[in-house]
Amino acid sequence: MINQLVNNIKKLDAPIVVGLDPMLDYVPEYIKKSAFAEYGETLEGAAEAIWQYNKGIIDATYDLIPAVKPQIAMYEQFGVPGLVAFNKTCEYAKSKGLVIIGDIKRGDIGSTSKAYAVGHVGKVAVGSKTYSGFCEDFVTVNPYLGSDGIRPFMEVCKEEKKGMFILVKTSNPSSGEFQDQQIDGKPLYEMVAEKVAAWGDELMGDSYSYVGAVVGATYPKMGEALRKIMPKSYILVPGYGAQGGQAKDLAPFFNEDGLGAIINSSRGIICAYKQDAYSQFGEENYADASRQAVLDMKEDLKQAWVK
Amino acid sequence: MINQLVNNIKKLDAPIVVGLDPMLDYVPEYIKKSAFAEYGETLEGAAEAIWQYNKGIIDATYDLIPAVKPQIAMYEQFGVPGLVAFNKTCEYAKSKGLVIIGDIKRGDIGSTSKAYAVGHVGKVAVGSKTYSGFCEDFVTVNPYLGSDGIRPFMEVCKEEKKGMFILVKTSNPSSGEFQDQQIDGKPLYEMVAEKVAAWGDELMGDSYSYVGAVVGATYPKMGEALRKIMPKSYILVPGYGAQGGQAKDLAPFFNEDGLGAIINSSRGIICAYKQDAYSQFGEENYADASRQAVLDMKEDLKQAWVK
Repeated sequence: MINQLVNNIKKLDAPIVVGLDPMLDYVPEYIKKSAFAEYGETLEGAAEAIWQYNKGIIDATYDLIPAVKPQIAMYEQFGVPGLVAFNKTCEYAKSKGLVIIGDIKRGDIGSTSKAYAVGHVGKVAVGSKTYSGFCEDFVTVNPYLGSDGIRPFMEVCKEEKKGMFILVKTSNPSSGEFQDQQIDGKPLYEMVAEKVAAWGDELMGDSYSYVGAVVGATYPKMGEALRKIMPKSYILVPGYGAQGGQAKDLAPFFNEDGLGAIINSSRGIICAYKQDAYSQFGEENYADASRQAVLDMKEDLKQAWVK
Repeated sequence: MINQLVNNIKKLDAPIVVGLDPMLDYVPEYIKKSAFAEYGETLEGAAEAIWQYNKGIIDATYDLIPAVKPQIAMYEQFGVPGLVAFNKTCEYAKSKGLVIIGDIKRGDIGSTSKAYAVGHVGKVAVGSKTYSGFCEDFVTVNPYLGSDGIRPFMEVCKEEKKGMFILVKTSNPSSGEFQDQQIDGKPLYEMVAEKVAAWGDELMGDSYSYVGAVVGATYPKMGEALRKIMPKSYILVPGYGAQGGQAKDLAPFFNEDGLGAIINSSRGIICAYKQDAYSQFGEENYADASRQAVLDMKEDLKQAWVK
């Protein structure tokens, strides 16, 4: 699946992933109205609204982008109906040829981590049958529990040819509270990155590893150091756009081959129609605004990408 | 809710939480047979089997224990039907007066962390209505992303009078890879514990805080140090029994008032009928075996608890 991700990125000349993180506030009124008319102001109504909203964005952008990254929290907040919408979104995006990066940030140990892995990127056995409860191609994973939490994901990923992005240095302001602490003269996030590189060596695709990393666009200097520590790991880079990361800061995240990083934008794309720059589209054409925002992002990223 | 947890523990003289972490392998054949007869060997069939299994254990133990801790991964592996069983389990346990600790180990930032919080311990707005997608009283939270990940949970917990247990020092063998790293002469887990204590001060119940911590029974010396750093935080202690933690090692996790810790046992209780010590119960009476295992655990813990 890492090979497919790399191929998609090359083919489209776009190291871009669209974060499908729908807040109900983002969804145009006409979609909510229609969903609530059918299901009422219920969890099912909310789920239908975010699914229809996502579908519009996928339809308008799938030919431009290699991957989408649904953030499961935004679905999970609506309980079981929300997770039905998560699944529908993943399945639909997959049917359009997109790689699915489930931003689930799970992390546990042993059989519990294994359960998350089989649930999201593998298959679970029920009697003589097997099923995929969810159907992502990659998932994000939290490293705080150490190897015991990562290896079960690696086992499942190896079997299924799927992958993961391990949180190394997150994009948020307080990420330094623990991640930046100095250990024997180097920060914790570098220690995590060294582990990511070692885990990644065990699970290589053609040119990149099935084990990638998350490093925030908001920390470009750290990105530069981390790029060198994990040369074979794809870096999933959140924080571009709404969180303040700028294209000029992204160059260090890429390798000399022009590959090795995929930049996420969520609000900047899915909520483009609410920005001044795209207000001419209007609410009814929110998906067209998202398409234009992807095109603009692609152009903007060329500063970083084309060395 | 921390007050209710403390009251339940005092009333029952039992600082015990039963981990409802059902593997399909644990479920007696007759329950699986019946569930598969109704739903086939499907995700729905698996979900029905684990729900019926849980119900039996809750019915047989609810009068002895203050709380249950369903591990969401074990349900999530069966996709949406599994999460329906998670919800049914939480709702049923709550109807029996039990406090629900959702072992979800979520952790993200800002609006995403908020979404997890409203989904699991709060209420989500849909138009003019509000709903609880899931219905735990406490959740476990991963601290790797720092305050940005914790504060949204604190906001929701404050509003709802619910609580959380933050991972400090986990029970697994590799927990030391990152958690034990020395920072200015003290380990990372102590630094996390200091934060837990500070967050906890902001969100106090009557005698203990709504902000607790997870510290593994397998590390009693660390437990002793952590108890002092977080005097007002309840410590959720996994790792007793199957993972190797023994009652004699648990004393340091308790405060002088005999409170401050709640010991989890999962397999040791829910899978008691598979152990030699309880084999006389037989598969059909698995729930009675679980009841006896709770009684035995309570007796065993007195070594630690009664100082």
